[in-house]
Amino acid sequence: MSLLVVGTVAFDAIETPFGKTDKIVGGAASYIALAASYFNPNIHLVSVIGDDFPQSFLNTLKESGVNLDGLEIKKGEKSFFWSGKYHNDLNSRDTLETQLNVLADFKPVVPESARNSEFLMLGNLAPAVQKSVIHQMTTRPKLIILDTMNFWMDMALPELMETIALCDVLTINDSEARQLSGEYSLVKASQKILKMGPKILVIKKGEHGALLFNKDEVFFAPALPLEDVYDPTGAGDSFAGGFAGFLSRTKDISFENMKRAIIFGSAMASFTVEKFGTERLIGLSQENVDDRVQEFVDLVQFDIAVY
Amino acid sequence: MSLLVVGTVAFDAIETPFGKTDKIVGGAASYIALAASYFNPNIHLVSVIGDDFPQSFLNTLKESGVNLDGLEIKKGEKSFFWSGKYHNDLNSRDTLETQLNVLADFKPVVPESARNSEFLMLGNLAPAVQKSVIHQMTTRPKLIILDTMNFWMDMALPELMETIALCDVLTINDSEARQLSGEYSLVKASQKILKMGPKILVIKKGEHGALLFNKDEVFFAPALPLEDVYDPTGAGDSFAGGFAGFLSRTKDISFENMKRAIIFGSAMASFTVEKFGTERLIGLSQENVDDRVQEFVDLVQFDIAVY
Repeated sequence: MSLLVVGTVAFDAIETPFGKTDKIVGGAASYIALAASYFNPNIHLVSVIGDDFPQSFLNTLKESGVNLDGLEIKKGEKSFFWSGKYHNDLNSRDTLETQLNVLADFKPVVPESARNSEFLMLGNLAPAVQKSVIHQMTTRPKLIILDTMNFWMDMALPELMETIALCDVLTINDSEARQLSGEYSLVKASQKILKMGPKILVIKKGEHGALLFNKDEVFFAPALPLEDVYDPTGAGDSFAGGFAGFLSRTKDISFENMKRAIIFGSAMASFTVEKFGTERLIGLSQENVDDRVQEFVDLVQFDIAVY
Repeated sequence: MSLLVVGTVAFDAIETPFGKTDKIVGGAASYIALAASYFNPNIHLVSVIGDDFPQSFLNTLKESGVNLDGLEIKKGEKSFFWSGKYHNDLNSRDTLETQLNVLADFKPVVPESARNSEFLMLGNLAPAVQKSVIHQMTTRPKLIILDTMNFWMDMALPELMETIALCDVLTINDSEARQLSGEYSLVKASQKILKMGPKILVIKKGEHGALLFNKDEVFFAPALPLEDVYDPTGAGDSFAGGFAGFLSRTKDISFENMKRAIIFGSAMASFTVEKFGTERLIGLSQENVDDRVQEFVDLVQFDIAVY
């Protein structure tokens, strides 16, 4: 089933306690599309880049089955660039530099062929831009998944609330859930946020896993304890990509299937952090993915019935 | 099977974003013994208090089946007192005041009747004091569980390393595991720490759950997302108490059974944080405990096989 991914395709320069990169390929939509491509061969990408972007990465996307008709390439302009440095615990980071470049006046145009996509994954962007995408859809998607961040809660809350009201699944992290709801308890926070429009709330907790809430149920997926973690950049987007990819492939948006989707999303995120940038997310085999998912199954499996 | 619990029985004064208490009963051994008492009716407590301690709490311990022959009451002296204030996220706190009082020269004496206990749970105390308890045992316990904290890593590392070398299960939090091992990755940290002596490492992550490691395996238990969290004080001790209580009752120290013990420990901790101090840990029914454990089962249950 068709999946439309909208978000940034960009350059990052990253410093973590374990190393440092020059300009490498990043951007929410890059991670989302790559992660989703392991589950769905029918993905449309809508984004914008300058003519400074490496063709090799665009080829990788195409070879992964990602349709780039909606990728605008602006001649003579530069791609979005972000540079950041992670603190020792990898859970917080400082932005060193942001160059909006082509993103400054990005007005996404969804190609005709993608306007009836049944699944829509909106990566982190200005809420008004995300909303403009929803309004271009000719039929209301079966599922709209929205990712956002604290920056928009600080800078554009009214627009953000309007966009949140239009989505089915909202993905944010724990501190953002607390900020958006004004509640410390994530249970209370979820109840408040689910009244803002979404039917499902996913709270991403990085190395501490993820929570899935609907009005009546809650599910927790752990993060895999990894031997090597180099770079958390893109983990949340890879998670969202695996989640959206799995749901769009299985065409089942029940809470039970969303649990599975969260596990597949967590598996994709666990690959991403093992190397800098998108490197680890390219060229995985089906067996790699299945083995990784089995590690999640083993990690939380216990049998209380027999004691 | 007999369980010997050693640790503080004390007064706390606690401030969290959700309220504030005067002097109330606390102390690691209070939480451990109460939590363990739901699983094992054969518990010995070794600790020290002044004659300022409320008889009503001692009666509560006795009624819970905790033998107090090893509880030294020092006439004319005051009990250990700690006062602290939690930050907004409840994951960090400042100590406002510490009065060692009777704890200053505490030399635990294990009563004759408890020296052959098969399970030994050492709550947080000076490592040399913990070691002196191990040396008083007439037969080596089947399982020695050791809790400690960063304070001793900073102040008494050589003594701590000696005591760690004598235990079977070490319980510390994630930042302590990183400090003790010098490794950021908890997987690498666990490998290093397991070479220091323990066969099992439990990494407590508070509201983010707990990890159980042996040399070859890892298990993750989530924390329950709670509607009301008032006071995290004693959560780690309640966790350890449930863990030790369950293991000593089932007499099975296999990795599989330790997984179950972690879930029961997590359940006991989830009660503790719902009220200030030990209040919520007193008077629970078997049904309360079973229902809570079932919530943990439901929280992480998913079936990947059917997709």
